[in-house]
Amino acid sequence: MDFLEMMRQRKSCRSFDPEKQVSREDLLKIVEAGRLSPSGCNSQPWKFIVIDSAEAKEKLCDAIVVENGATGAPWRHQVSAFIILVEQEAKVMPLVLKHYQDSQRFAPGDIGAACMNMCHEAFTLGLGTCMIGVIDQEKMEKYFGIPHGCEARVVLAVGYAADNSPVKKIRKPLEEVCCFNEWA
Amino acid sequence: MDFLEMMRQRKSCRSFDPEKQVSREDLLKIVEAGRLSPSGCNSQPWKFIVIDSAEAKEKLCDAIVVENGATGAPWRHQVSAFIILVEQEAKVMPLVLKHYQDSQRFAPGDIGAACMNMCHEAFTLGLGTCMIGVIDQEKMEKYFGIPHGCEARVVLAVGYAADNSPVKKIRKPLEEVCCFNEWA
Repeated sequence: MDFLEMMRQRKSCRSFDPEKQVSREDLLKIVEAGRLSPSGCNSQPWKFIVIDSAEAKEKLCDAIVVENGATGAPWRHQVSAFIILVEQEAKVMPLVLKHYQDSQRFAPGDIGAACMNMCHEAFTLGLGTCMIGVIDQEKMEKYFGIPHGCEARVVLAVGYAADNSPVKKIRKPLEEVCCFNEWA
Repeated sequence: MDFLEMMRQRKSCRSFDPEKQVSREDLLKIVEAGRLSPSGCNSQPWKFIVIDSAEAKEKLCDAIVVENGATGAPWRHQVSAFIILVEQEAKVMPLVLKHYQDSQRFAPGDIGAACMNMCHEAFTLGLGTCMIGVIDQEKMEKYFGIPHGCEARVVLAVGYAADNSPVKKIRKPLEEVCCFNEWA
């Protein structure tokens, strides 16, 4: 399948089959797609925590519940495995530090790219994914020993989709997001 | 080619053939890979400015030169086209705003993912890409009419590689970036 066709077909999955478990072998292929990702100054400012034990999954499901019991993932208990993408301090070139005064300038984008690549690899393995961004950072530190100051940027849910019916992808039209040679 | 194999083979390109121009048709396929990308709350917080006229390219080459004439892209004059990825205000769910008090929490990661997808599509078209992050925001506003406050997150250089010799990809080993069920 060509890449654009994959982009058209892939979609976030919010309905997982709780009976079908993802193998460690597949999870490691997904992690590999993240590990190989490019990053600003090749800083690789990430750590990937694979959550696949029953106990750790229970904690993870709680760590994505925030104020007043709100969550972006009400379907979280169906999920076979999660991968926490934690931002680490980026070692960048002096030019970057001098210009932005911020070693982490590129890190969120780098992690976004790594997470996207994980989604693509999962798709090729026949697995569904959903990126979860609403995260209780204190619970993350407490449950998983993430050092204070290292932020969990995104949690990737991974599993077999319960429902493979096509979803219409809703995107802004080309004219709204693209222009040539100047802002328009 | 399977996705992991593409991840192994792709690399940033820093040596472009200045004689070979990328077609608008190919540039639009690359933009399409960005347009179709997922984003937090499907906010699509981006605008893609394709820079392919001689005049605009000249300005772009100056806009990625910062203090004291420093640049991350000394090879920029060889490049056939650029795509500026500009961050726009993200409309996110109330849950996200309440938790992070920041509508842009996910936007840099979303743009990182969109840019990664553009690189993959370019790769499948036989084109080389390099993400450029050191950008003079004031020049961007002045040259291209980008509204003040909308940040140019990344400039993607696109062209035919002058040198296709394999580069060894240097990445941290798996054990350093991956752990299971707790931080290690």
